[in-house]
This record gives sequence, structure tokens and C-alpha cells, in this order.
Amino acid sequence: MKKVALVLGSDSDWPIVKPACTQLELYGIAYEVRVLSAHRTPEEAADYAEKARENGFGVIICAAGMAAHLAGAFAAHTTLPVIGIPVKGGMLDGLDALLSTIQMPPGIPVAAVTVNGAKNAAILAAEILAVSDNALAFKLYEERENIRRQTLEKDAKLREEIKK
Amino acid sequence: MKKVALVLGSDSDWPIVKPACTQLELYGIAYEVRVLSAHRTPEEAADYAEKARENGFGVIICAAGMAAHLAGAFAAHTTLPVIGIPVKGGMLDGLDALLSTIQMPPGIPVAAVTVNGAKNAAILAAEILAVSDNALAFKLYEERENIRRQTLEKDAKLREEIKK
Amino acid sequence: MKKVALVLGSDSDWPIVKPACTQLELYGIAYEVRVLSAHRTPEEAADYAEKARENGFGVIICAAGMAAHLAGAFAAHTTLPVIGIPVKGGMLDGLDALLSTIQMPPGIPVAAVTVNGAKNAAILAAEILAVSDNALAFKLYEERENIRRQTLEKDAKLREEIKK
Amino acid sequence: MKKVALVLGSDSDWPIVKPACTQLELYGIAYEVRVLSAHRTPEEAADYAEKARENGFGVIICAAGMAAHLAGAFAAHTTLPVIGIPVKGGMLDGLDALLSTIQMPPGIPVAAVTVNGAKNAAILAAEILAVSDNALAFKLYEERENIRRQTLEKDAKLREEIKK
Amino acid sequence: MKKVALVLGSDSDWPIVKPACTQLELYGIAYEVRVLSAHRTPEEAADYAEKARENGFGVIICAAGMAAHLAGAFAAHTTLPVIGIPVKGGMLDGLDALLSTIQMPPGIPVAAVTVNGAKNAAILAAEILAVSDNALAFKLYEERENIRRQTLEKDAKLREEIKK
Amino acid sequence: MKKVALVLGSDSDWPIVKPACTQLELYGIAYEVRVLSAHRTPEEAADYAEKARENGFGVIICAAGMAAHLAGAFAAHTTLPVIGIPVKGGMLDGLDALLSTIQMPPGIPVAAVTVNGAKNAAILAAEILAVSDNALAFKLYEERENIRRQTLEKDAKLREEIKK
Amino acid sequence: MKKVALVLGSDSDWPIVKPACTQLELYGIAYEVRVLSAHRTPEEAADYAEKARENGFGVIICAAGMAAHLAGAFAAHTTLPVIGIPVKGGMLDGLDALLSTIQMPPGIPVAAVTVNGAKNAAILAAEILAVSDNALAFKLYEERENIRRQTLEKDAKLREEIKK
Amino acid sequence: MKKVALVLGSDSDWPIVKPACTQLELYGIAYEVRVLSAHRTPEEAADYAEKARENGFGVIICAAGMAAHLAGAFAAHTTLPVIGIPVKGGMLDGLDALLSTIQMPPGIPVAAVTVNGAKNAAILAAEILAVSDNALAFKLYEERENIRRQTLEKDAKLREEIKK
Repeated sequence: MKKVALVLGSDSDWPIVKPACTQLELYGIAYEVRVLSAHRTPEEAADYAEKARENGFGVIICAAGMAAHLAGAFAAHTTLPVIGIPVKGGMLDGLDALLSTIQMPPGIPVAAVTVNGAKNAAILAAEILAVSDNALAFKLYEERENIRRQTLEKDAKLREEIKK
Repeated sequence: MKKVALVLGSDSDWPIVKPACTQLELYGIAYEVRVLSAHRTPEEAADYAEKARENGFGVIICAAGMAAHLAGAFAAHTTLPVIGIPVKGGMLDGLDALLSTIQMPPGIPVAAVTVNGAKNAAILAAEILAVSDNALAFKLYEERENIRRQTLEKDAKLREEIKK
Repeated sequence: MKKVALVLGSDSDWPIVKPACTQLELYGIAYEVRVLSAHRTPEEAADYAEKARENGFGVIICAAGMAAHLAGAFAAHTTLPVIGIPVKGGMLDGLDALLSTIQMPPGIPVAAVTVNGAKNAAILAAEILAVSDNALAFKLYEERENIRRQTLEKDAKLREEIKK
Repeated sequence: MKKVALVLGSDSDWPIVKPACTQLELYGIAYEVRVLSAHRTPEEAADYAEKARENGFGVIICAAGMAAHLAGAFAAHTTLPVIGIPVKGGMLDGLDALLSTIQMPPGIPVAAVTVNGAKNAAILAAEILAVSDNALAFKLYEERENIRRQTLEKDAKLREEIKK
Repeated sequence: MKKVALVLGSDSDWPIVKPACTQLELYGIAYEVRVLSAHRTPEEAADYAEKARENGFGVIICAAGMAAHLAGAFAAHTTLPVIGIPVKGGMLDGLDALLSTIQMPPGIPVAAVTVNGAKNAAILAAEILAVSDNALAFKLYEERENIRRQTLEKDAKLREEIKK
Repeated sequence: MKKVALVLGSDSDWPIVKPACTQLELYGIAYEVRVLSAHRTPEEAADYAEKARENGFGVIICAAGMAAHLAGAFAAHTTLPVIGIPVKGGMLDGLDALLSTIQMPPGIPVAAVTVNGAKNAAILAAEILAVSDNALAFKLYEERENIRRQTLEKDAKLREEIKK
Repeated sequence: MKKVALVLGSDSDWPIVKPACTQLELYGIAYEVRVLSAHRTPEEAADYAEKARENGFGVIICAAGMAAHLAGAFAAHTTLPVIGIPVKGGMLDGLDALLSTIQMPPGIPVAAVTVNGAKNAAILAAEILAVSDNALAFKLYEERENIRRQTLEKDAKLREEIKK
Repeated sequence: MKKVALVLGSDSDWPIVKPACTQLELYGIAYEVRVLSAHRTPEEAADYAEKARENGFGVIICAAGMAAHLAGAFAAHTTLPVIGIPVKGGMLDGLDALLSTIQMPPGIPVAAVTVNGAKNAAILAAEILAVSDNALAFKLYEERENIRRQTLEKDAKLREEIKK
């Protein structure tokens, strides 16, 4: 199976990105975490993006805040699917990072998830890899069933509480 | 190769979604266009989403505006990657549709592209299918080279014009 | 008298929705609380909405945040009046949930109250039931008179305090 | 059956409100249109609101833009359900009117529909009256079925067009 | 000299409005504080506004948040200058109250100061009364000179601190 | 009677400010129009503000857009009431000009009216002068009565039209 | 004298950037115009930025819209002052481009001017070069005097027109 | 070498501006800190701006919040490059100060950095002075290399941590 690259614009984003790792481990998907900045280490970032496919990666997840250029800079150097996680914290509290991530020019897409949405970014990466991997697709299906069951249990529990 | 489903919340969104079809044809990717609304035909939409994987689809693209629930409603019924195209036009002129598309609960991701970003949605779909398809990956690489060349030609042309 | 259904997109919204229950009890209106998600349990939600009228409900109140699809998903499956309570917390701190709740397509309305406005949602539900129930209408009228009196008392009290 | 009052803050809002009348006529619901301003004719507005219930009204729809106080001013003088239609046009292009309409103090609710959402306001009014009127409820159900059919026809038609 | 009326939409706004009283006392301007709500006590508010001029008031200051209708409701019932203080706290954190306060229809102005700007509202009221009161105008001039002096002292003090 | 100064940050704002002149003429209030910029002619602006009171002015109205500093610059040099008219046109389409006008530091107030609100600025200026001028106050009262009558006529007219 | 580089993210931005050229010619400052994209030609852009100082440039002006990464990408590869011109047109109509341009990480600044502010970007570039060039500084001073004179002439002209 | 002037609209902004001093000291650039307000000490501010060039300054940095007029007021009185630091804290939490700072009329530019971006303002000032100062340019280059190295070290460190 292809690996997932998780790139952070700053090491301070690690607590936000960590849930993505937990999620990928749950599916048994191999991943690599890197701190590479579009502004502080532009060459290393470009180099990593360019070689990502040949290095066995299938999806790249980039997390960045403020003038969040990271996902776009990666997308400029690869044709692998690039998922952008806008990190909360700029003047519009993450909306700026989202718009900076998503408003790419025609021809060079970035797939954005919601602000600080690392878990969903990982699930999306898994869904992408599962397009050609039935075993993984089945894991995803089972997880959804679990989510459904848990919600129904919460429903039952709340109704119990209210009755009392 | 897996097909791409293109779902419109309203037939009036067709002119916005059409460029996605053109782009998919360019790559030789089979696709199906449907008008299915989360609010006007919720059952047909749910049914289509649920059977999408077994019907040979690899990616679902949903275009919707205003209280843009379509991509989310699809994501609720499938574990295929769902790409949301927010359609311009609500109170925040597309930003509302983007936020309605992207702010999904943990566990059920939607991959958003920019407002009216049908062309990039199609390229993203192709990138997803290309993860396990080297021939398609090569087409995507070549297209990028073309974009690069065209930009350099525009650069040369503008510099010529200014000299005169 | 018809009952009121109170549906939460997540059990974590319970503290926000609880004041609605208190208010309905004050009027002697029967109600039922459920946790049903447009994304996590879409079928159960659809089913509950479809049978709401025949199950004796007169009004449905839905509380959801983020990409707040719940009220819209309910409105898609019933012609009972659906009141949406946008829950604070997304990228625009509730404004996104409001816009996601209120910008419904023509033909399928949702009645929105303000962010976290559970108490007013309950009063609105009572006002709706009171259209054909004079006793309830009189209770609502008396409550208003109380509000008026309390405000005048606060006015008198503050003026007292300032004089000292 | 109770009547519906349609109040405009300015006669220039008439083209926006007119679709509500058409919709109410479709259901055979009697209605009255008035131009009454919270700022220009505050006493007449207060008086009309206060006597609305005894004058046979079941729902009041108020349309206003800018510092949209009209629905709130009506809600202050009646316990009938008040539906606010924010009219497009202020500094935030209708969002301001929506927030001015919806952010009522606890105790005095307004039910808001989307900006310029006169048609949905009328349907919501009908849904409210239909809570205790099965014949009207059936009309609403049939209309929904029509909406569903029309959407499926549009789906079929677009697919035909694309095939060609 | 004419008096200033200070009207609060809710007694909870008192801490925000209090600095206006302090400021008015500084100038020796008589004032009256009232809690009167556009929605909870609309008649008392209208009555107070209508009789304000004959009761010796020269300026009315209204403080309200959320769907801040108070200043507008006062302006609808008087031709005295009405100053609106938008109170922080709604969905746009005061910007909504500002827009609700300021976007009045042509013919019925409200003078807005900034969010929670009670001190400046009081100074503005004093400036209005000083148009025809030279002694008060002189007090205002002296206060400005003090502000200038204090700023220059802060400048000197900071430069001292930095030198060390 | 004191005069009103009308200051434009740019001569291109003249069409927006003109209705203020018409309104002042209606009341028989003398006024002077000037083009003075906080950035292009800062000294002339400062000088004009400083001498405004001794030159017989009672109120200063400033109209400016974008980084609308004009009203604030005037307020910095006078203790006369300064009314700011934010002019539509910046990145937030007038909201920026409003915030730039209204968010003054404590001690130096500006009274803002709505974007392009020249007519209301003039009425507010008249209301300020009328605090100590009963004849003017009566004119303002009569104008309000006219507004009321006109609204009731529009109400009657629209009802006539609908009946047909 | 050092040259100014004018970089456009897209040749479609040329009409917006052109006034900067006119302005630079007025000062006799040499400049070069290039179309180089952070996403379409990232290597050429990086290369150009890196060699800018040794190639005789003193200031770099970058114009880009949407997810405006251009100025940031240049700043990542040079320590010359980089001026960013956000181009109107994204979801927030230029505000997004501004935030994407200006919210750079500590250590790598971009100097932003207003949306479509090409003329001011050129003047700012001239001001930067004039820090060590008295002749250029004098030209800038004279231009300001002209602006002042022109404003006073417009003032005189408007006053003439009003008198008639 | 030319000096840098650091002007604060209020002494309360000192903690925000201090990092700029630290940064300038690092480069060995002389600077002067002043508290001068566009509204509280307009004449002193104008005077300081006008004489800045002859007093040996090369760049002026202005920090102000709310209706942030300071940078603009300085730019109105000098042709030195003026860098504006919008200070967090107004109704739009700094975005207002940014727009108030950046939206200058054509002819009188201000170079804005991000909200509270004092460090980057200082680096930008250094970049401006370095245009004609090779030794300073080299210091800036070295600092960038350090930033690159530190980022790579953080990358290595995080990867170490994850391995454990």
C-alpha cells in the first residue's frame, strides 16, 4: 500500500496533526511526518514534494496556518492528491488559512478539509487509498457502522437520563 | 478504471459543473452526471451514494450552493472520496456554501475545492484515480508541464509587448 | 395537544438544548428528545422525520452546529414546521451554522432562531401550537406581561441603586 | 382558517414579498398586505400587531432590510408566530438584516427565513396553519411530491442533453 | 442646561454604560438612567422618548446589543439627537449591534459611537450641549489639552524607561 | 444660528454628499462645503477644524471612504460635534470606512451615520442645532409627521393596487 | 540606481499592474516585468528571486490574487524588500489575497499595499530607493506638493460650482 | 546608517512593539521610540513626521489599533517609507486596524505588515536600509540561513520523538 506524507509548516502544529497519525495507524497505513516550511525551507519542501510519488507516497497531507501556502507549494511540485489542513490562528481565525489553502489557480488543485481537521484529513487519505484497495474500503465501512452504532447508543443514553 | 460521479444539487448548476466533464474527457475518465438534491430528492440521493462503489465509481463530485448539504449528504452514505464544489451565490457569495460543505463532523470527511472550482475538482478526481494508475499519473504530469510552458510563453509575450 | 420533537445532532449539544425543555414544561407541552445525526445516522433521522406527523408531533426543533445540515435534512422529510437552532462553534462561531440552517432552497423552509437560541425556539414552538389553542395563547400572553413587569422592576431597582 | 398578515417596512419591498402572496393563494390561505414601518409609523405598526390575533390572523410575516427592526417590533406586540424576511441591501448585503431580525432577546422569538425568502416564508406560514388543518397539510405534502417529481424530470432531461 | 437620558436595553448593560455617567458628572451635566426595552417594554420606551424634549432632555443615549433596536425605537419617537452605543456580544461580537443601530432609514438618524463606547457617547452628548453653551465648550477644550499633556507625559515616561 | 461645515475627503464624493446640502437648505441652515483631505492636505484640514467654532460653525460633517481618517482627523482638532459619513467603496464596501470612522480612542468621539448616509447626517446636524432652537425643533417634528403621512399613503396605495 | 522587479502571478493581472510602470517611469526608475507563478512555474520564480539582488534589483513588487502566494514565495528566496499587491477577485474579493499576502511567518516579511494598489506599490518602491538617493527623495517631495495643490484646486472648483 | 523611528499610538502598545527593538538591535540599527497619537497629539505627530528625514531617519514604523490612523497620518507628512503595524483589538480584532492602515489614497502609500507583526516590521525596515548597505544585506542573508537550519533541526527533532 502507498504511504501517506504528513507535512507540518511548523513543529508547533504537531498537537493538531497528531490525531491524523492515530487514525492512519488504526487503518494500518504507513506514514511519514515532516516539518517543512514553504517560507523557511522552500527548497527542501519542493524537493520532498517532487520525489514523493517515486518514494512510495500516495497522498500528501499539509497542515499550515496564517498565509497558509504549504499545501499549495506542495501541489505545485507534485500531481499526487494534496490534502490541506488549515490551522486555526490568523486574523480570521482559520478562515484565512482555509482560503489561502483552497483558492488555487485552475490546473493545480488542493483538497481542503476543515480548520484543524486532521482526523478527517487522515480518513480522506484512507478513502483515496481505498479506491483501489477493497480490504481498506471494508475497514472504512466498518468504522462508519461503528459511528452509527455509537450515535444510537448516545441517543438511548440521553433519553434514559432525561426520563429519570 | 473507476468512473467519476458528478452530482448537481440543481440543474441550474450545470454551466458551472460542465468544465469538470471536459477535463475528465481529456483524461479519458468515464463519468456520469446526475441532478439529485439533498432536500428535494433525499432518498434518490442516498440510494445513489450507497450504491456508488458497487456501481463502479471511484470518486463522487458534488456541486451545491447556499446551505450546501449535498456533498455532506453523499459522504454520509458512502466511504468513497467525496469532493465538494461550493457554488457561488448565497449570502456570503459562496463562502457560506464552502463552510457548509467543509465543516463536516469527525469521521465523515468531504474534500472541498474552491467556489465554482469544477475544473480543479475534476483534476483532483483524476489525481485520486492516478494513485494506482501510472498511465493516468503520466498524463497529469504532462499536463503540468504544459501549464508551465504556457505560463513561460505568456511571460515572454508580455515582455515583448512591453518592449514595443 | 400536539407534541414537540427536539432533535440534537450530537449529545454534546444537550446543555444548549435543555432550556427548551424547561420552557416547554412550563407551558405543559409534551416533548421528546432525540440524538439523530444527518451524517452519522441519516436513515434513522429520515425515518423519524417522515413519521413525525403521524406520531403526534406538531413542531420539530433541530439543533446542530458546524455544517449544520440537521434542520434541513428534517425539513426534506416532513411538512411540519421545522425550527433550526444553530449551535455556536464553527469557523464563523455560529454564523456558519445559521447560514447552513437558513439558506434552504425554495419549497423547503426552515425557521431559524438565533445561535444557541433554544429558549426562543421553544417559545416559537408554543406560539405555533397556540395558533389553534386559546388556552396556550393565554399562557403566552401572561408570560409576556411577566417579562414586561420584570423589566420595569429592574428599571426601578437600578434607579434606586444609582440614587444611593 | 386563520389569515396571514404580510407587513412591508417599505413599499419598495413589494416585488420581493409578492411571491409570498402567490404561494398563499395557491393554498387558498387568506392574507392581508400592509406597509407599516417600525421607524416611520411605529404606532400604527404596534397597534396592528396588538390586534392581529383578535382580527383573525394566525401568522405575521414581516419583510425589512438594513437595521431590520420590523419583525422584532411586531414580536414585541403579539404572541402570534412572527416570521421575518430579511431584505437584501445593507452594508453586509442582507446578512445585517438577518442578524437584526434573528438576534432577539430571550422571551420574544422571531422565526427567520433566508434573505429575500418570501416564498419559503409563505410555505412556513402554511406549515404553521397546517399543524391543526389536515386538508392544508395534505396540500403541502402533494406540493413536496411535485417538487420531487420535477427534480427527477430535470435530472432525466439533463442526462438526455448530455448524451446528445 | 438640558439633561441627558441614558437608556439601557437591559440592566445587565449597566457596567458598560456607567462610565458615561462618570463623564457627564465631570462636566456637571444632569442625567437620568432608565432600563427600557424595545421588545420587553415597547410602550414605556415609546412614551419616554416622546416626552423627552418636554421633560428637559437635550440628548438621548441608548445602549443595546444583539438585534440592537433600542436607539432606532427611540429615534422613531423623538427628534432629539439619539446616540446609540452598540453593546458587544452578538454573533458578530458587536458589529451586528452596530449595524443594527446605524443602518436607519432616511429621515430618522441615529448617531452611533463604537462598541461599548459609553465614555465617548457621553463626551459626544456634551459636545452637542456645548454648541450653545460656551462654558461647557471651554471644559471640553481643557479636557482635550489634558489628554494631550497626558500623552506627552506617557511618551516621556516610556522613553525614560527604554533608556535605562 | 450656527452653520454646518461639510467636508469631503475627495471631490469625487460630492454626489454622495449633495443630499445633505438639499436637506440643510430645507431647514434654512447655512452650510459650507470644502474638499480637504487628511492625507493630501493635512495642514489645511487641521487649520479649518481648529477655527471652526470661532468661525461660527456648530457641527462638522466629514465624508470619506477607504482608510476613512477624515472625521477622526477633524475630531482631533475640535470639540464641536463631528459627524462621519463613511463612503462606500473599500475592501469591505463601506464597512471598513465605517469602522475606520467610528473606532476612535476614548476622549475624542466621532458620531457615525450609515454608509453614504448624507441625508441622515444633515438631519442629525439639524437635530443637534435644534437642541437650543425651538423653531428648528418644530420643523423637524413637522417633517416626521410628513414621513408618517407619506408611509400611510404608500400603505393605502399598495392595498389599492393589490385589490385590483 | 537599483531596478524594480514587477512580477505578475498571471498575465491577466497586467492591466492592474500597469499603473505601477507608469509611476516608475515618472521617477526615471528602471524596472522589469515578469509573469512568474508560485504554482505554475515555481522553479523559475524561485530562481528569479534568488538572483534578484545580484541582478541589480532593489525592490520586488509581486501582484497576485486568490490564494496569493507569490509575494511570500519571493520573500522566501530573497532578503530584498518584497511588496505585495493583492489582486481583487477571490471569495472575499481581495481581502483573502491581502491576508494570504500579509500573514507571513516571523522572519520573512512582506510589505503589503491595498488591493489593486499598483500605483502606491510603485511609490513605496521609490520611497525605498529614495532612502539613499536625495534626488529621488526630492522628486517624491515635489509630487506630494503637487497632490496638495491639486486637492486645493479641486476644493476651489467645487466651491465655485456650488455658488452658481 | 539611517535610523528607524518606532511610533506608538498608545503606550499600551509597547509590549507589542518591543520585539521590533530587539530585532533592530540585533542588526545594530539605531532607533527611537515615541508615543505620538494621530488624535491626542496630532501636531506633535505631524511635526515629528515632517522632520524625520532631516533628523536622520530612513524608515518610520507606526503601530496603532482600532481606527488605526497613525501610519496614514505619518505618511501624510513624509515621503520616507512608512511601515504600519495594525494592533489587535478592535471590532474585527485587528482586521479593522489593518484595513484602516492599508487602504490609503493613491499617492500616499503605507506598507503594512500583519497584525501585531512588530518583528517582521523591523526586518522589513532592515531590508529597506540594506538596499544600499551590503554589510546589512549580508546579516539578513545569514539570519535566513539560521531560520532554515533551525527549521530543519525542528524537523529532525520531531521525527526523533515520533520514532520513540
